[in-house]
Amino acid sequence: METAAKNTDITVGLTEQLAAWGSQLTLEQIPEAAIINAKQCLLDWLGVTLAGAQDELTRILHETADAEGLGDTATLIGRNAKGTASQAALINGAAGHALDYDDVVRIFRGHPTAPVAPAVIAIAERDGLNGKDLLLGLAAGIEVESRIGGYMGDPHYLKGWHATATIGHFGAAAGTARLQGLDAETTAFAFGIAGTQAAGLKANFGTMCKPLHAGKAAMNGLMATEWAKRGFNSRPDIVERDNGFAKNFDGTCDIDIALNGLGEEFHLNNLLFKYHAACYGVHSPIESAKRIAANPAFDSKKVEKIEVHHASRLKGMCDQAEPSTGLEIKFSLYMTVAMAIAGEDTGSLEVYSAENAVREDLVKLRNAVVLVAEDDFTPNQSEVIVHQNDGTVLRETDDLAIPNRDLDNQWDKLERKFRALAVPLIGESKTKAVISAVKDLESQDEVSDIINLLANTNG
Amino acid sequence: METAAKNTDITVGLTEQLAAWGSQLTLEQIPEAAIINAKQCLLDWLGVTLAGAQDELTRILHETADAEGLGDTATLIGRNAKGTASQAALINGAAGHALDYDDVVRIFRGHPTAPVAPAVIAIAERDGLNGKDLLLGLAAGIEVESRIGGYMGDPHYLKGWHATATIGHFGAAAGTARLQGLDAETTAFAFGIAGTQAAGLKANFGTMCKPLHAGKAAMNGLMATEWAKRGFNSRPDIVERDNGFAKNFDGTCDIDIALNGLGEEFHLNNLLFKYHAACYGVHSPIESAKRIAANPAFDSKKVEKIEVHHASRLKGMCDQAEPSTGLEIKFSLYMTVAMAIAGEDTGSLEVYSAENAVREDLVKLRNAVVLVAEDDFTPNQSEVIVHQNDGTVLRETDDLAIPNRDLDNQWDKLERKFRALAVPLIGESKTKAVISAVKDLESQDEVSDIINLLANTNG
Repeated sequence: METAAKNTDITVGLTEQLAAWGSQLTLEQIPEAAIINAKQCLLDWLGVTLAGAQDELTRILHETADAEGLGDTATLIGRNAKGTASQAALINGAAGHALDYDDVVRIFRGHPTAPVAPAVIAIAERDGLNGKDLLLGLAAGIEVESRIGGYMGDPHYLKGWHATATIGHFGAAAGTARLQGLDAETTAFAFGIAGTQAAGLKANFGTMCKPLHAGKAAMNGLMATEWAKRGFNSRPDIVERDNGFAKNFDGTCDIDIALNGLGEEFHLNNLLFKYHAACYGVHSPIESAKRIAANPAFDSKKVEKIEVHHASRLKGMCDQAEPSTGLEIKFSLYMTVAMAIAGEDTGSLEVYSAENAVREDLVKLRNAVVLVAEDDFTPNQSEVIVHQNDGTVLRETDDLAIPNRDLDNQWDKLERKFRALAVPLIGESKTKAVISAVKDLESQDEVSDIINLLANTNG
Repeated sequence: METAAKNTDITVGLTEQLAAWGSQLTLEQIPEAAIINAKQCLLDWLGVTLAGAQDELTRILHETADAEGLGDTATLIGRNAKGTASQAALINGAAGHALDYDDVVRIFRGHPTAPVAPAVIAIAERDGLNGKDLLLGLAAGIEVESRIGGYMGDPHYLKGWHATATIGHFGAAAGTARLQGLDAETTAFAFGIAGTQAAGLKANFGTMCKPLHAGKAAMNGLMATEWAKRGFNSRPDIVERDNGFAKNFDGTCDIDIALNGLGEEFHLNNLLFKYHAACYGVHSPIESAKRIAANPAFDSKKVEKIEVHHASRLKGMCDQAEPSTGLEIKFSLYMTVAMAIAGEDTGSLEVYSAENAVREDLVKLRNAVVLVAEDDFTPNQSEVIVHQNDGTVLRETDDLAIPNRDLDNQWDKLERKFRALAVPLIGESKTKAVISAVKDLESQDEVSDIINLLANTNG
């Protein structure tokens, strides 16, 4: 298989190398597993976007665009309306992150599909592009932003920047540039325009602005490409130059991490999906708790104590002891483990409710949970130990930072998740049609045929 | 006179204090001199925007918006077209900074009118507002961003952020919020949405992105207000909170500087205008050189040496020794002083040309210039000393960091500048009508009547 690694040249800066690589990427260069992951992240994003489109924040963005005048070239998913490409990128982008239920990739320190998918889908729909084009745009976008994420490292996120938003600008630009066949030089200018718009403060986590960030990244990256292709210029070495992206935004600037295996290894293969509509920090303990609950030796009436061993860095993030709202449950190891032990469907949106926060049987289990912070645990490593009054001890460990290499199993889980989100909104037959079209994305003549299935909801 | 200083309460954070102050600002609270300055910065901005609208970068932004579909509610100045309010804010905003010929205020470390005027004018035009409304929007916007500029201090700009762009987001939000009568709480949410979009890398100075930054700040700030007024939320203490604007963007966070005299002293009174279409660093020496050239004792044929004493910080910024393009002349103390000595009109756009860069008489004068960097000079302090071969020594000093307190004189100079920019594009009678309408802004029933005069060019 030919690879695009030939562009890795240390005499050329990171921005131009990534622009050259992205602009020359072909489907033949992408390993089969990465293609499957691209389809899977697309299906996942379509589901969470359809559900997130029903959120109040999406309604406000839609209403505001409507007041200015909606275009008619790109679908506003789940909103029974269309907009311009940039309106769709903004509104679908915010909807896709509204539930915080979308995928993650560790090197990016963020949600990779959130800024890329809405941008490339809007352009694909506007320009009548096909499924192969969309795959290329997704792959170029997610790969470029992941590598810039590696270049930035932990300090960027820890300083207070929302990486999904800031770095996501490059993903949206890279995806829309590849989709439209921009050359390497023009793509580098698009990156320069994208980087200079990059924004997103972590201070706004917990407000409507967190999802907005993803939508703005999608829209700004898309506009960077629109302007660059018409001759708008910028610094084509924006990521690495003085007063540029990485130095201003507190990056570590490790070019080896950024370029390691470019063209041969795809970060698409390292996607992590969420199957529980809660903070990613509670996912591993939930998985362990579910397996314990399924163990024939388990008896909920006999539970005395539930030890949850977790990474220290989750302290102050997922340790709400007595949650009283649905949102607070999502950040409570106590209550989410209790719900998993009790057999509640933590993949549904409805279980995270104020009613469940005070339900007697759940509160009883919640009060049996003891958190043990472990300094040497990796971020998503966990161990759950249930002690029963018959002397039985049940113990399970998980680490959801490790990508699932069984892609058939991943399809099954993602299909279940998509069905749970989509069937109530678009019905059984459209849901099935979307799943089958995404699985066979290379054969789709028009991306708009898929998106049209998600345009209108029953409600 | 009643002041708005009552809102200065150290138990409430900076963001909410500025939001409360801005939302309650009335024309009666604004000193007469600040009102005059507001009209003057408006006239100045209209002139540089009309001229900047003819630039290639403005054409690209216009063409891109046209491809998506232009609205019809707000004028694209000098482009013979209209757009939505956000399109107009973006495109007029970029046009206004395209020539880098717009006003400055030192506490802001940037161009205060550039992000505010396009936002408030677009809303005023869309909503049929009058001249008094526009004055209020301008005053609230420029005051809020100036005070946040004071809170950020030098480190923000020195780190590599384009303050006109980053901090300008708050100015555009404050202006559009006041214009629409948003209450204090909603205005604080608008600030939270504005701050989370704030962006602009100094690395892009010298590219089309520098003007784009001003347009994006105008558009993003305007959209922050549009979303906030429909219920979009955010952190209402975005400027000062952890992971918020000031801490992420390397601010000094000096609340005393930020709030000093709020409601009584207006930074509008500290505006500095450009009368030479070049870097602000060369302005003081040009003024000195022009007075020397006007001295009866001066004889250009006798010039032996021209000493230009300037602040050390201009080194590497305005010291191009042998400029070869018009843009390079703008950053050359050598050539701009030579042109001023030779009696060239440094206020016109045309003198900054490749032809003049090599004109024999100018090159001869340029070669007589000797730069002397002075460590103890303030940024805009300068002394020019001309030595003639008859033993005559002519010496003049200037410091254009000191605002002009003679506002009649400032009107005269700004009218001349406006006429030089506007008459070639819209003709004599419209130029006169704009000047007279801006001077009597309080009496204008519709802001759109003024903007319509600038909509279409002869070309």
